[in-house]
Amino acid sequence: MAGVVERKAIRVPGFRAAGVRCGVKARGLDLALLVSERPASAAGVFTRSTVVGAPVELSRTRVQRGGARAIVANSGCSNVAMGARGRRDARATTAAVAAALGVAQQEVLVASTGVIGEPLPMTRIRAGVRKASSALAPSGLERAARAIMTTDTFPKLASARFEVAGRTLTLAGIAKGSGMIEPDMATMLSFLLTDAEVSPGFLRASLRAASDQSFNRVSIDGEGSTSDMVLLLANGAAGNRRMTGPSSPGAREFRGALEAVTAELARDLARDGEGATKLVDVRVRGARSRAQAERAARRIANSLLVKTALFGADPNWGRILQTLGAGRIDLRLARSRVRLCGVTVFRDGAATGPAARRRAAARLRGAEVEIEVELAAGAGEAQLWTCDLSYDYVRINAEYTT
Amino acid sequence: MAGVVERKAIRVPGFRAAGVRCGVKARGLDLALLVSERPASAAGVFTRSTVVGAPVELSRTRVQRGGARAIVANSGCSNVAMGARGRRDARATTAAVAAALGVAQQEVLVASTGVIGEPLPMTRIRAGVRKASSALAPSGLERAARAIMTTDTFPKLASARFEVAGRTLTLAGIAKGSGMIEPDMATMLSFLLTDAEVSPGFLRASLRAASDQSFNRVSIDGEGSTSDMVLLLANGAAGNRRMTGPSSPGAREFRGALEAVTAELARDLARDGEGATKLVDVRVRGARSRAQAERAARRIANSLLVKTALFGADPNWGRILQTLGAGRIDLRLARSRVRLCGVTVFRDGAATGPAARRRAAARLRGAEVEIEVELAAGAGEAQLWTCDLSYDYVRINAEYTT
Repeated sequence: MAGVVERKAIRVPGFRAAGVRCGVKARGLDLALLVSERPASAAGVFTRSTVVGAPVELSRTRVQRGGARAIVANSGCSNVAMGARGRRDARATTAAVAAALGVAQQEVLVASTGVIGEPLPMTRIRAGVRKASSALAPSGLERAARAIMTTDTFPKLASARFEVAGRTLTLAGIAKGSGMIEPDMATMLSFLLTDAEVSPGFLRASLRAASDQSFNRVSIDGEGSTSDMVLLLANGAAGNRRMTGPSSPGAREFRGALEAVTAELARDLARDGEGATKLVDVRVRGARSRAQAERAARRIANSLLVKTALFGADPNWGRILQTLGAGRIDLRLARSRVRLCGVTVFRDGAATGPAARRRAAARLRGAEVEIEVELAAGAGEAQLWTCDLSYDYVRINAEYTT
Repeated sequence: MAGVVERKAIRVPGFRAAGVRCGVKARGLDLALLVSERPASAAGVFTRSTVVGAPVELSRTRVQRGGARAIVANSGCSNVAMGARGRRDARATTAAVAAALGVAQQEVLVASTGVIGEPLPMTRIRAGVRKASSALAPSGLERAARAIMTTDTFPKLASARFEVAGRTLTLAGIAKGSGMIEPDMATMLSFLLTDAEVSPGFLRASLRAASDQSFNRVSIDGEGSTSDMVLLLANGAAGNRRMTGPSSPGAREFRGALEAVTAELARDLARDGEGATKLVDVRVRGARSRAQAERAARRIANSLLVKTALFGADPNWGRILQTLGAGRIDLRLARSRVRLCGVTVFRDGAATGPAARRRAAARLRGAEVEIEVELAAGAGEAQLWTCDLSYDYVRINAEYTT
């Protein structure tokens, strides 16, 4: 059933994966390999930064072919700002994978995450690719999830099953989050696999739509990375009739599974934001437009004052109104409303009183909290996931100097 | 001489001031009164927030008359989000001042800074106004500066003398900064006094221009307040011929003094940002346009990753490029350049090496640091002052819950 998401690793028919250690990072697994046994449709969504790494350039070009066989990803070094050498190293990494697997170099996608401005240690990467090729297994997804972790505190996996014409299909994904890498970069990577047979065009449209409702709804600190990348491979091992558009048999179920898995991974990214103690769900209603609602939600999610108040479990609606005002968000104060974890703390232009405040404060101590704001200026709505800002964010980003 | 700024309090002929305690804050001076002995030209610059307090509404209207006699300001309570009651209390505060001084209510401007959503304690405010009226003195500016402080760690004063047709004129100002108030609001207030004779129109134009190059160049945490206000009174006690435009005798000297004093106060605001350990001067050159330069400088100044790196004295040029990229700033990476405290750490698309990095790291330990970025995309330039982000910012804003 689409929407029923399992966190544990799961096998996706026709795919094998591995996570190995090759020595880019100081410790731990640091090279992931995901391989389809047959040619798969492929789609990607990439960072919109004006500064991107060589892996983004290469994978963005290759995925336009609409097909791929393998994804290789390393953590510990982002291969960004390395000029011609960076481009050469990204290509060489995919060449090593192609040689090990006996596929064309064009069929290999690559991602890197880590320190900016340092060269990929190619001898180690090549050895890692050989090691990963030998370790490939249908159950290898969990180790692959570990191999792309940086300051993430837990590996992120999610999967869902869905039915198409009596067959049970699978969609599974891994992600790494908004942890800095040693500690340079808040890079978001996610790789998704399904045994569904889907045309490249429909795969691309589906991934774009799902990303907009999941990964693009996460904001940890208002930053974006040079290396963000989401890749989706669909290998058709399930043997369903090829889906080519939203009215194809099973398309609705496939999209439901994709949305459920990406939303679950996105929530995990916010939950595991650097130094985060809380997952925060921000909902804005009644904005003058959809764009204003989006801006309002981002103002709240990225406000240092709001994030530090949440860390302190302070039901500080004043800071929420202040950051909306500073962002020039249209609102009718006399009819606006602020609810924290379901408790209305501001209504009709005034605080609702100390009892509501105490109740909200108690609920804000939880690990998952909700901010709802009604602007009373129109019908625009938006939603974002974020996290609070703690001492640990400062520690991770100030003390772990490169 | 314009441009020669003294930090110590100074008398401005024809003005008296006082700072007293009336009990709005838990401790310390909390009510300031600044009075001109004669009608003065007046100009103001106000927050552009869509959520503003009653004092901003009232003073913004009154200053349009072009003249004023007094400024009253309290700390500890911002009188924001209080509806009709807030407007009544703001007017009542100015009525109390008018009665005590024997001037018209319309000639009194008012500012408040502090907690949002709580009523002004009017009995205390009225008593404070009476107390301040009796305490008015030519030397009272320093106590007035203390009375508007919130989490500021030092009072902010600056003054300059300038010559007009053989006479020595004075311009002095006080400011309070980007400290939260108990700890709700990062409000910026500044009040400026001069004995120059200046027409309201030229005063307004001069204040707007000076603010754009000073207060509007400070960014502590990307927030803006409901209560920000800069007021300038010019009482003509010096007896100079009235300045009415940039070509009036002394206009250049007056503007020079105004720019020097506001810039000094602005630097002090950044230096005293909450939890700040460093004053950071951000300079962007070579942007595609002036607007892009401005956006680039704000991206850098407000980046949590850059600010925490500065706290850690980490010469992390990668984070600077990353936040520019994420902000979609146009740049030619291969010709871009990053200098930290005068040391080039990134040039021609690559790091300049470990020796430069070490030298930059040593200089970043200082109390005043500089970030210079060349984008190689055009001729746009911008400059901002900001500060680093330390544990104390989180402590001030998370632990001191309201």
